[in-house]
Amino acid sequence: MTSSTDLVDFFTSVVVKKFSSSPFARKTSDSVAALGEKKLIVAIRRWLGDASPRAPFGIGDDCAVLPAARGPQLITVDPVIYGRHFDASIPPRAVGAKLLKRNLSDLAAMGGRPTAAVLALTLDPRTSLTWLQAFYRGLAACARRHGVPIVGGDIAQADGVLAASLTLLGAATGPRVVTRTGARCGDALYVTGELGRSLQSGHHFKFSPRLAEGAWLARQPAVRAMMDVSDGLAKDLHALTPSGAAPALDAVTLPLRRGADLRAALTDGEDYELVFALAACADATAFATAWRRAFPRTRLTRIGSFARRGALPPSALPLDAFFGYEHLR
Amino acid sequence: MTSSTDLVDFFTSVVVKKFSSSPFARKTSDSVAALGEKKLIVAIRRWLGDASPRAPFGIGDDCAVLPAARGPQLITVDPVIYGRHFDASIPPRAVGAKLLKRNLSDLAAMGGRPTAAVLALTLDPRTSLTWLQAFYRGLAACARRHGVPIVGGDIAQADGVLAASLTLLGAATGPRVVTRTGARCGDALYVTGELGRSLQSGHHFKFSPRLAEGAWLARQPAVRAMMDVSDGLAKDLHALTPSGAAPALDAVTLPLRRGADLRAALTDGEDYELVFALAACADATAFATAWRRAFPRTRLTRIGSFARRGALPPSALPLDAFFGYEHLR
Repeated sequence: MTSSTDLVDFFTSVVVKKFSSSPFARKTSDSVAALGEKKLIVAIRRWLGDASPRAPFGIGDDCAVLPAARGPQLITVDPVIYGRHFDASIPPRAVGAKLLKRNLSDLAAMGGRPTAAVLALTLDPRTSLTWLQAFYRGLAACARRHGVPIVGGDIAQADGVLAASLTLLGAATGPRVVTRTGARCGDALYVTGELGRSLQSGHHFKFSPRLAEGAWLARQPAVRAMMDVSDGLAKDLHALTPSGAAPALDAVTLPLRRGADLRAALTDGEDYELVFALAACADATAFATAWRRAFPRTRLTRIGSFARRGALPPSALPLDAFFGYEHLR
Repeated sequence: MTSSTDLVDFFTSVVVKKFSSSPFARKTSDSVAALGEKKLIVAIRRWLGDASPRAPFGIGDDCAVLPAARGPQLITVDPVIYGRHFDASIPPRAVGAKLLKRNLSDLAAMGGRPTAAVLALTLDPRTSLTWLQAFYRGLAACARRHGVPIVGGDIAQADGVLAASLTLLGAATGPRVVTRTGARCGDALYVTGELGRSLQSGHHFKFSPRLAEGAWLARQPAVRAMMDVSDGLAKDLHALTPSGAAPALDAVTLPLRRGADLRAALTDGEDYELVFALAACADATAFATAWRRAFPRTRLTRIGSFARRGALPPSALPLDAFFGYEHLR
C-alpha cells in the first residue's frame, strides 16, 4: 500500500503561480456538463487515440480483455487529486503524465515494465473540457512513450472533486522482481538521482520514472531489496530496513537537489528515485563502473549502509529526528 | 468504459432514512486523522484479514505480485462515492460489499470470474474509523465469499471526499468471453431478474452479482452478446444493438420489480441484471428448460428481439421516448 504525498500546504502557500490552468470552466459551454456523458466518452477516446485499443481489448465493453500474461504480474494503484497532487499552476498535460509516471515509478522499484492501465476519473460537472483534453493528451503521450495501452476506465461525478486514479499492470523484465524485503546488516545503501525540493523545483511532475534503472538493478543478484522514494527517505527507509538493523546514513554523501538542505532531502516527498541495498560482499567498484556504463547520465550515490541497531557509528545521521510526510495528520 | 449512476437526487430527496451511519466522525478521536496513516494501514490490513494476502503477493510493497495467468484476463474499474452511490442511510458494510459487487457484475456480464482486486481510497481526515472499519469488513466478507484477494491499495486524502475505486481482475470461466457485440437481427432478447426501483427497494446494495448465470450463459454458443444493465435498459440496450437493427421490446413481458412501472424498469439505474441476445435459430424452449434446471431461483424473461430498423412491429415499445440515466447533466 503506497500513499500519496500531501501537497495541499505547498499548493496553498509556497508556490509562485507562474501561469494558471484552472481545471474548472468559466463558461458552461466549456464544461463537461455541456457535453454530457456519452459525447464525453467519445471525446476521451479521441483524445487517447492509439494509446487506447478498441473494445473488447480496450474501452467500450463491461470489461477489457487482456492477452494472457506469461510469468508473474505486477499491479499498483496511485491517484492524482486536485489540491493534493496538482493545482492550477501545473499544466494539465503534465498532470496526466504525472498520474502514469507515479505508477511507473512503483513498477520500476520492483524491476518491472508496464503492460496495461485502467483509469477511474471523478469529476465535478464544471470541469473544463479544455483542461480535460490536455490532461488526457498528456496521459496518452506518456502512455505511448512507455508502451502502456489504456484499456479501461470509469467516469463518475462528484461536486467539487477532480481526481483520477490509475491502476497499472506490469510484468517482470527478467527472472525476478525485487521486493522491499531481503536487505541484511552490512548491506550498502544506494540512491539514484537527487533528493529534496521536488515540489519547489517541479521535479514532482517533470521526473522520469527509473524504469530502465530498475530493470537493470533487478538483473544484479547483489541488489537485495529496492523501493522508490516517495514519502521522504527518512520515512521510506523503514520499509527496507531488516529487523535488528538501522540505516547508517552519511550526511556528506546525500545527493541534494539544487537548493535542498539535509532536512529537505530526508523528509520532502515525491522524489520518485530508487533506493536499494547492495550485498556487503559485492564488489562496489565494479558495480559503480557497470552502472556508469549502463546509465552515464543517472547519478548513483552510496549513501550509507545498514548497521546493527545499537551499533550505529557516531557519524551516522540521527534519522529518528527526521520524519517524512505523515498522511492524514 | 462504464459509468456510475447518479444517486444524488435520490439520496437528497426520495429516501426515507431508516437509520444513519454517518461516515464522518463526531469526535476527533474516532477519525482517521486521530490514527494517522501508518496505524491506519495496519488497521486496514487487520480489517481485511485473510481477504488480503501478505506482501509481495498483497499490500505492503511498491506493487503486488500476482501469479501468472493462463488465458486472457478481464479488467474493470468502478467506484463508490459518498453522496452518489451511497449516503448515511446505507450500512457501511453494505457500501464495502457494493463496491466489489458492482465490479463483479461487470465480470459476470462477460462470463468471467474474479482473480484479484486493488482499492484506491480517497478520504476526508474526519472520516470515522467506526464507519471505515465496517466498510472494510463488508468488503472483506464479500471478497472472501467470491474468492477475490484484495492485493493492493492506496490511501489519499481530500477534504470533503469519501470515495473508493476498485479495479477488478478476472479470467474467463470457459473457452470464451461474451462481449457486447455479436447480436444479429432476429435474435431474441432476454433479461435476468427484475428491473426498476433499484434505489427505492435497496436492490442497489443488496443485489447478488450474476456470476454463475454469466458463466453458464458464456458456455451456451447461442448466446451471442451480453452486458449488465446498470444505467437503465433503454439506454444500455444501444450497446447491444447490431447496426441496422432496433430492439423490439414487448411491454407486457418486461419483468417489473415490485412497485416499478414501465418507465422505472426502462430508465432506472443500478439493476445489475444481465441482458443478452440469443440466436434466432436457437431452440428457445430447450434453452428455457436448461436455464430453469441450472437456476431454478433466477427469473429469466424473453423481453423481445432485435428487429430490422424501420420494420418494428407496431406493438414494440417506443424506446426512444425513454432515456436511461445520462451522467454529467
